[in-house]
Amino acid sequence: MAYKLPVGISNKHVHLSQEDLETLFGKGYQLTKTKDLNQPGQFATAEKVDVTGPKGTLKGLRILGPVRSQTQVELAATDARTIGVKCPVRLSGKLKDSAAVTITGPCGSIDLKEGAILAMRHIHITPEDAKIAGVVGKDTVSVRVGGERGLVFDNVAVRCTDTSFTELHLDTDEANAAGVVNDQLVEIIL
Amino acid sequence: MAYKLPVGISNKHVHLSQEDLETLFGKGYQLTKTKDLNQPGQFATAEKVDVTGPKGTLKGLRILGPVRSQTQVELAATDARTIGVKCPVRLSGKLKDSAAVTITGPCGSIDLKEGAILAMRHIHITPEDAKIAGVVGKDTVSVRVGGERGLVFDNVAVRCTDTSFTELHLDTDEANAAGVVNDQLVEIIL
Repeated sequence: MAYKLPVGISNKHVHLSQEDLETLFGKGYQLTKTKDLNQPGQFATAEKVDVTGPKGTLKGLRILGPVRSQTQVELAATDARTIGVKCPVRLSGKLKDSAAVTITGPCGSIDLKEGAILAMRHIHITPEDAKIAGVVGKDTVSVRVGGERGLVFDNVAVRCTDTSFTELHLDTDEANAAGVVNDQLVEIIL
Repeated sequence: MAYKLPVGISNKHVHLSQEDLETLFGKGYQLTKTKDLNQPGQFATAEKVDVTGPKGTLKGLRILGPVRSQTQVELAATDARTIGVKCPVRLSGKLKDSAAVTITGPCGSIDLKEGAILAMRHIHITPEDAKIAGVVGKDTVSVRVGGERGLVFDNVAVRCTDTSFTELHLDTDEANAAGVVNDQLVEIIL
């Protein structure tokens, strides 16, 4: 029996360092949590910024909290093309030589030298679920999505931690290509 | 040995009936061909229109020629969401109960009652190539795309005609999700 897990779709968003948060929103600024996300400790905030590349600006990207050690911008390839930025496909946090963009907030802007990526699609999974799913020790798996736009995603990264909520994260291009919606169940293929 | 064919990526575009072309561009208007497309007889034109839904407008969609019996708007799901339209996944020409949009040109506009779709991904193939590929008589096949965003598209429609140029047509969401570029070779899986 194939192991099933729900889909979580990531719209374009920004993670900020505390230093960059203060440049954009003012000295001592703290993020305003509006909603917990499925991954424990992660949350949506009330704060938004604009992200600019050579060909245009994406307005009102949501900031996700908490603050991180390094600022990161996650776009779908459609978004990146809209503003003329060529982003590499990366796991979150792997930002060396990723794309440059400008981030603008109400109190200032930042010329980010690197930090804009397309998120590599990935599974968050607990060690218990990883055992049941048979993916212990695997770096990547394939995942089947059913339905009229059904497909099999290869090269899906496996991120196994004790504090995970087990789900598949896709960006909006990937979700649209597969015709999936949030919380739809998909199958790991071994 | 798997059969390989190139990818052709369809950006959002519009096909017009002669009647609708004249409403938008003026009485007796003829399309201005700028470039032949791979499919014989099909061409890009100099003419552009805006497409509007409840939540916004997509500016400057290219019109593809020649004119057709019925006006059709092909969007990626990302585009459809941008203007607040819910389009069904359809083969070209299957427009019954598809989505409503407004099309605006320099001389007028049209409230299209139906005609906006997400194109069902499909292969154009000649009867000769269909024999070699082993897809004669098949309605759909699966297609594998390699690379870092590699995946297998299921439910790919097969459109076999004498006048085809053999290629896989994807929309921009699908191409972005798979990380493919125009003319990249992909494999039919039987």
